[in-house]
Amino acid sequence: VTIRRIKIVVEYNGSGYHGWQIQQNAHTVQAEIENAIFAITGEKVRVAGAGRTDAGVHAYGQTAHFDTKAAIPAEKFQYALNAVLPKDIAVISSEAAEPGFHARYSATGKTYQYKILNRKARSPLAENLAWHIPEPLDFDQMKTASSLFTGMHDFSSFCASGHNIKDFTRTITESSWSRENGYLVYTIRGSGFLYKMVRTIVGTMVEIGLGKRSPDTVPELLTNKNREMAGITAPPFGLYLVSVDYD
Amino acid sequence: VTIRRIKIVVEYNGSGYHGWQIQQNAHTVQAEIENAIFAITGEKVRVAGAGRTDAGVHAYGQTAHFDTKAAIPAEKFQYALNAVLPKDIAVISSEAAEPGFHARYSATGKTYQYKILNRKARSPLAENLAWHIPEPLDFDQMKTASSLFTGMHDFSSFCASGHNIKDFTRTITESSWSRENGYLVYTIRGSGFLYKMVRTIVGTMVEIGLGKRSPDTVPELLTNKNREMAGITAPPFGLYLVSVDYD
Repeated sequence: VTIRRIKIVVEYNGSGYHGWQIQQNAHTVQAEIENAIFAITGEKVRVAGAGRTDAGVHAYGQTAHFDTKAAIPAEKFQYALNAVLPKDIAVISSEAAEPGFHARYSATGKTYQYKILNRKARSPLAENLAWHIPEPLDFDQMKTASSLFTGMHDFSSFCASGHNIKDFTRTITESSWSRENGYLVYTIRGSGFLYKMVRTIVGTMVEIGLGKRSPDTVPELLTNKNREMAGITAPPFGLYLVSVDYD
Repeated sequence: VTIRRIKIVVEYNGSGYHGWQIQQNAHTVQAEIENAIFAITGEKVRVAGAGRTDAGVHAYGQTAHFDTKAAIPAEKFQYALNAVLPKDIAVISSEAAEPGFHARYSATGKTYQYKILNRKARSPLAENLAWHIPEPLDFDQMKTASSLFTGMHDFSSFCASGHNIKDFTRTITESSWSRENGYLVYTIRGSGFLYKMVRTIVGTMVEIGLGKRSPDTVPELLTNKNREMAGITAPPFGLYLVSVDYD
């Protein structure tokens, strides 16, 4: 029996989960997928994701892989898995992985989006799907700030502590705001991201939008390498892992 | 003490409700709003909505009114109500109604949208918020069909039975499809709508998109006044009451 590696792209509503990664006594996306694979193949496999997402964070295109001896054709795994996965998780594509493929180590970049609802009333249709900010935001100032994150920078000031990381340098190829369907949507694409980096960047830009700080402070923040100086961490439920890039 | 009439615009996620209108032993949006008004004013009032929405149907802009003796300023009702309403209902504006205003009888038109997700995999982030159709749809044929509903027509063929209505003539001023954020979105605006009319129009257009019938059959359907000839009723969870027009 040959062992094949299957690559899957996964969408999920993270509202009901303690994030992607398996933890003891916690409801996680990875555990649900491993359970679904067991249900259809009888195999206890480990699913490797491109990156962890925190509790409450959503994904349009988390990417993962697993190894299987099951005779199910690679493209059919998505249908089999979706039949047993809970409604808040779906496999949107499955295929045979290229030789040597690893969801995490082969990734060359990731794209995230962050959605803000900027109006007085909260939105039942955006509940747990966007950050509701009732105060007026200066969107032009936020746009100006967003452009300052592109390029190669040390993002120490935008990284939550408690992780054993030595190199805080990351390259950001896109960092921009747009208006979509009544939401303010921030898109950031880069080679890699530090822990809570996107949410800290968003929280800092919201403080700029509220007039609490100026876009001019962004280059300083990048230079000073001090998390205390950056803004608040935006809540998880506005964040979406949109896609993972591979060569 | 003067009695004032308050006009409110309401957004809701209809997934958890048996529709707008109060019914015995059922969870309804109207009942939740009446309970919220009682909680803040102590008054047992009747809330009149512009129109009923069925179980599972959503609203961005349902409009309603109620009469109150409470001293709360009209514009402040939204904040007071949102503090006590459940998370899947919110008042997005409140104001003093014009003299003679009635949410239902003063309405001159309504706009609805219907969202379809046309891709193979179901979407956790669109769960209960769009109709998932995995088969390919001929969107051009659906667009052609949509234009045939504009104008003044007898919509008997698109009206669910069981209602004591004599005049089935309605005027449609907009009927069009667009692509928005990965969804196929149908917008229909008109003077008024019959029971399940939008969902029957959408179900018929989906049958056209699936190649089961031709757009040419739409004028016949409008002429023949026979519900049996029209298409299926699209499911409620893709439908949104977007706004109600007043002069």
